This record gives sequence, C-alpha cells and structure tokens, in this order.
Amino acid sequence: MLKFKENRSFYAYAYDETLAANAYRIVKNEKESGEAGYYTLPSVSKVLIGQLQTYERENDFLENTETIVVIGIGGSSLGAKAVDSMLKHKKKSRRKLLFFENFDPLTVTQTIGQFNKENSLFICVSKSGGTIETISTFKTILHHFGIGLESEDTKRLMVITDKDSPLSRFAEMYGIKEFNLPLNVVGRFSVLSAVGIVPLYLAGYDVHALLDGAEAYETMFFEGKSKEILEKACFMFRNRDRYTMNVLFVYANALEDFAKWYVQLWAESLGKIDAKGEKVGLTPIGLTGSADQHSFLQLILEGPENKTVTFINIEDFENELSIPEMTLPYIEKTDFINGRSFGELINAQCNATMESIEEMKIPTDKITLPKLSEAHCGELIIYFEILTSLIGAMSEVNTYNQPGVELGKMILKEKFQE
Amino acid sequence: MLKFKENRSFYAYAYDETLAANAYRIVKNEKESGEAGYYTLPSVSKVLIGQLQTYERENDFLENTETIVVIGIGGSSLGAKAVDSMLKHKKKSRRKLLFFENFDPLTVTQTIGQFNKENSLFICVSKSGGTIETISTFKTILHHFGIGLESEDTKRLMVITDKDSPLSRFAEMYGIKEFNLPLNVVGRFSVLSAVGIVPLYLAGYDVHALLDGAEAYETMFFEGKSKEILEKACFMFRNRDRYTMNVLFVYANALEDFAKWYVQLWAESLGKIDAKGEKVGLTPIGLTGSADQHSFLQLILEGPENKTVTFINIEDFENELSIPEMTLPYIEKTDFINGRSFGELINAQCNATMESIEEMKIPTDKITLPKLSEAHCGELIIYFEILTSLIGAMSEVNTYNQPGVELGKMILKEKFQE
Repeated sequence: MLKFKENRSFYAYAYDETLAANAYRIVKNEKESGEAGYYTLPSVSKVLIGQLQTYERENDFLENTETIVVIGIGGSSLGAKAVDSMLKHKKKSRRKLLFFENFDPLTVTQTIGQFNKENSLFICVSKSGGTIETISTFKTILHHFGIGLESEDTKRLMVITDKDSPLSRFAEMYGIKEFNLPLNVVGRFSVLSAVGIVPLYLAGYDVHALLDGAEAYETMFFEGKSKEILEKACFMFRNRDRYTMNVLFVYANALEDFAKWYVQLWAESLGKIDAKGEKVGLTPIGLTGSADQHSFLQLILEGPENKTVTFINIEDFENELSIPEMTLPYIEKTDFINGRSFGELINAQCNATMESIEEMKIPTDKITLPKLSEAHCGELIIYFEILTSLIGAMSEVNTYNQPGVELGKMILKEKFQE
Repeated sequence: MLKFKENRSFYAYAYDETLAANAYRIVKNEKESGEAGYYTLPSVSKVLIGQLQTYERENDFLENTETIVVIGIGGSSLGAKAVDSMLKHKKKSRRKLLFFENFDPLTVTQTIGQFNKENSLFICVSKSGGTIETISTFKTILHHFGIGLESEDTKRLMVITDKDSPLSRFAEMYGIKEFNLPLNVVGRFSVLSAVGIVPLYLAGYDVHALLDGAEAYETMFFEGKSKEILEKACFMFRNRDRYTMNVLFVYANALEDFAKWYVQLWAESLGKIDAKGEKVGLTPIGLTGSADQHSFLQLILEGPENKTVTFINIEDFENELSIPEMTLPYIEKTDFINGRSFGELINAQCNATMESIEEMKIPTDKITLPKLSEAHCGELIIYFEILTSLIGAMSEVNTYNQPGVELGKMILKEKFQE
C-alpha cells in the first residue's frame, strides 16, 4: 500500500468531525445513487479485460501492431499517459502508446511522422463524440494515410466514447470497433474506464493489477479506515482562503504526467460557482524534483504563505545507478554522496526539501510509492479522485461538470462563421 | 517585432507615473552600475561568436559530433532548452541538443542510453561550479563512458561556469575547454550568456539573430519607448494581493519549455522577503493551449478571481497542415473548420479563450510572435526578464538572489553525514 505522512501539527488540528462525516456521507451517496460512476470502475471495468482478450484473439493484425495511437484531449488522454509515463520503463510488450493530445500544426505534423499505418492501431477517444480537436485530427489521419472507411483498413480503427454519441453512431455505421465509458463517468475521472483501460491493456500493462490497487484503496476508504484523507480534505477546505494553492511536488520525471493529470482533476472539479453563488476552488500546481528545487522552491519558502505542498516519492526505484567513487580535484565538496545511488540522492533531496518547507511552518504531506507498479498507480489514482470528491462535497460544488468552458466553444464557432 | 495586446480597461487604469518612473530608474541603475549583468548580454555576448568560430576551426572532432550533451539544472539548462524547443523544427544542422536536467535514476539511465561517446560533446554547466546533481552526473558520465582525464578524451569535454569556481579550476588543471558567464549574471537570467549561447551556437542556431532580437527590445525599452511593459508591471504590483498568480497560457507545444523558463524566472526572482520583512511574490503558472482549455480553464473562469492571464501565440506557424474537407456521418457539427489550417484553428481557439476570460472581467494580455525565429525568441526572453526586474524593483526585493533554498542544501548534506 501507499504510505502517507502528514505534518500532523497542521492536518490533525484541522479535522472537524461533522464536516468530515457530512462529506463522507455525500461521497457515499454519490457512489450508491450512481451520481458519480467512477467509484465502481475498479470492479466494473474488469469486464473489459475479457472483452479485450476476445478482441485480441479475433484480430490477427494486432500481432504486428507496434504503435497504439491515441487521439484524445484532456481527460481522454491525460490518465492513460500518466500511467504510461510512470510504468513504461518496466513494460515488456514492444507495443508503445503514442498520444495526439495537443493540436498545434507543428505538433500534429511531428507526431504524424512517428508511425506507419501498417503497424498501428488508431483509437479516437471523445466522451461527447464531437470534440473539435480530436475529430479534426482523426480526419487528418484518415486523409493522410488514405484510410478508407469502406475498406478493410477500418479494422485498424477504434473509438471510445459515450453510448449513442455522434462518434458512436459513426463507428456503428462503418463497423468500427467501439468501447463505451459509463455515462456517469466524466472525462477527468475516466482513467479506470475504457478510456484508460483499453489503450493500457493493448500496450501491455497489467490493468488487472491497476484496478485491484484502486479497489483496495477504495474499499479501505468506504470501510472508514482512512482517516488521513478526511483530515487532509478538512484542512484544504477550511483553509481555502489562506492556502489557495496546492503544490504537487513529484520526485521523478516518471511522475510528471501524473501531476498533469492531477492538475486537470483538481482544477476542473473544484473551480466552480458554489451553492451560494460564490466563485471557489483551489489552484493545483505540478512541480518535479529535484529540478524545481532550483526554480519554484524559493517562492514556496520565502513568498506569501498561500500554498500547501504535497510530495510524492518512490521508495525503491529498482535501479542501482550510483555516483562513482571519484574525486575531481577542486570539486571535492560534492564527494559526500560518492558511492550512493541516485535513488538515495533524490529521496534524500525530497526529505530535505520537505523539512526545509516545514521549518517555515508551511503545511506539507507526503505520499510514498513503495515502488512503481500498476497496483500502486491504481491506489494513487483513486486516492486523488476521492480526495477531490471530498473537497468538492465540502465546497458545495458540482464536482463533475465544467460549465465555464462552454462560452469559449461558442465564441470559437462564431469566429468561423463570420 | 513582437505584438502586444493588453486589456486596456485593466492595465492602463493601473498605471502610476511615480511608481513606473521609480522602477525604471532602479532598473536603469542596475544596468549602469553593473548590479545586474543581464541587461548588457545582448551586446557583450556577441564576442562569444568569434570565440566559438575559432573553437570550431581548431577542433576537427566536432565535424562528426552529432549530440551536444548539456548537463545542467535550473538556470543552467532551462533557457537553452526553451530556445531549442521553440526552434528545433526549423533547424538545419543535424547536431542535436540533449539535456540532463533532472536526476532521478530512471531519467539518468534513460538519457545516458541516447548517445555514444564518439559523436558527442559534453558540456557541464554550473555557475557555482559545485551543484550536487550536475557534478554527480558529470562523474557518472566520465565513469560510464570511460572518459580519461589524462587522455585525449578531454577534448570532448567543456565547462561553463563562473571564473575561478571549483569547476573552472578543475577544467584548467586538465586543459578542458571553458567558457565563463559574467559574475553579475545569475542562473535564471543567464540564457543570453555563454550558458545559453554556447550550446545553442554549437547546435546550429543563429545566436547572432537571437542576441540582435533581444538588443532591439532592450534598446527600445531604455529609450523609454515601451510604456506597455511599465503598465503591466504597475498592474501586477499594485494588484498583487488580489491577483496573486499569473498564468502564462502558450498556444503551441513548442512554447511549453519557454513557460517553464518563465516559471523559474518569475518564482525565484520575485518570491522573497521584501525590504519591510514581508513575504511577497507572485506565483507563475504555465499552461499549454488548446489542451489546457480542457483542464485548467474551468478554474480560471469560475474559480476565485486571483489570476491574471498572459497569452502567447504564434501568428504564422509556417506550416500548411489543414483539416481535410471530409464529412463523417453523424459528426457533421465539427465540419465548420473543414478546409481551415491547424494554425488558424489554434489561433482562433486562443482568441476565443481570451475573449471568454475577458467576459468574466479577468485581466488578460497577449503577446504575439509573428513567427518562430531566433530574433523573436530573443525579444521574448528580454521582455520577460525586464518585466521581472521592474516588478522586483517595485516590490523592494533583491531580484537576483535566492537565499531560501540554502537550508535544504544544508539538511541534505547532514543526511549523508549521519
């Protein structure tokens, strides 16, 4: 299991039994009523595994498929990419995931040059089935590679979308393989649905372990055994006017995309007009150590006291790379880490930074992954999802919609109709 | 030149002549007294070009050198990487830059596997000459590739550091090629010194144009011709308690590393204890469009009104990739952009998002690069550096030190001496 360490002088102090009990009740009700579907994904998504095994058996072309091309933006790609970035150094399958997730002309041009039609599977992911960037890029790929919708090329296509969405109907019309996500699962909470599970399975990850890890934490939570998450939610909510930002400081590049996933989850779920008509929300910031110790850290330490800091580190990198026993004349003062592993160094940096931040009376907590694995990744995902839901419940917002972004979409359309 | 667009209803309104004149005077004095050396880099760094041409002439091995390996963290890598990411798609030289800029074991292992000794040049960059991560990785590379300090391998090594630093003395002892940055130029303001210019020149960039671009903006500023930057600095400073964050929303992946450079510049320069002993500073946040419209944007629009938003876009991507004239049954509603280029789409998205944010009365401004080029890149760099110095002057902080991060370094050392 993940290991949690809170600065108790902050978090325990902020615990409010009524507030916590109320949020827990709301979250439990969201699960039981089906208002939010993500809570049950760790168990219900297991049915996908059998379907995927059948799909693999029935499609010989997959044997020579080397690239799983995922076309999706925001919640349609961030989750699978976060898991892939965390685990790809350990993966045995030679199939790789490639994401179209931003759509400026240079990026699309460069990404399109990285694979061939003959050894790729193209997955178009859009919950609504009409995301402008995704559909435009999907068309561009069809056109660029001359993929005919009436030809057998369609076997190389797949869509993941809501049942009966425009994209779903299109797929049905041409016999394109389709997976759906539950209607009550919104994009940023969808990584454990088909949106994440299908590409991750096809790329060779142990999605069963991923779901099991998530289920283990979720069960523990709903059995009332994780008081720390409630304390943290209480602290974040009660101090929202003082600590308006939460920094997620991850100590490994492999976790950088997880921080991006967290930024979407937190920002889009909590940045809302609340029941009283007030604009509320905590601002998420992702940092990567140790590099950002040489960048953002100064602001955390000596800038305004408006941030909480959550560290994530990896206890065992399963990597023995060490600093050689070597003395360079004149630079002897760095010799104190000679012979130590890079893993030891970065974890010591994480701890030293955490201590220096605590020294300034800034609230911190730390989540330690014993190692990088599907199971721990699943735990980490559901932990942050539940934390977000708890704070959303306390904040009296709708955690699962995103009404603000509609205006920009309307203005965009008008610009092209002038 | 860059094009600047401010929401005048905010920025012009905040202008305070005395505040602006005072900050201008401080900045001018920093330049003339040499308190901060970065202002003169656009002219003084041109001497590096002649030195680099000589170095190239005298070192035949460079002809077969394909990878310039830069080992540096924070200000020792972020600037060169920002320029490289912005321009590499246009570069003609086959030499590429590779950065060791984070130092967890997985990243070091993975990066070390990407080049060979025989076709690489290794540049160790550390202003102080004793940065723990940089020196440790430099040793690891020497050890891994069996680079002997008494052998002719040393021709493949280079250091960029302060004159007389430990690293400088080490280099001198073994006859390793060395470049220095001016002592009065701090890491995060050093991209136009040897720190950025040397690797960028060797990778084939037109550093003369880069410096010229910076010089053009700098000259204009010191001739008193850029009132907009003073208005913006006044606004940011006077509203620092209300708008505690500045979001830099860049509309192209190629600008993502520029946003990281900006985050260091802003956070480490402005996050300080001020002359009155108060903890002050604005928090920088980097976002990338259009992807982050599907993530962070909801928080900007409906969350607390505590952010200003600066957009950067590229007018002409010099790329014709277009959305094909193709209708997919059931998904016709996205056809309104058929036949349009991806460049048009992303710029329209940038404008639509800006308008939707202005609709919520949130302060915005936009910087447009006519196209991606060394000259515009130079302008953009010096613009943000001067803006930072102006706000630092108004805030009565020392913009050029970073005292807060020393404690963590001491704790780290103690951890290894236990």
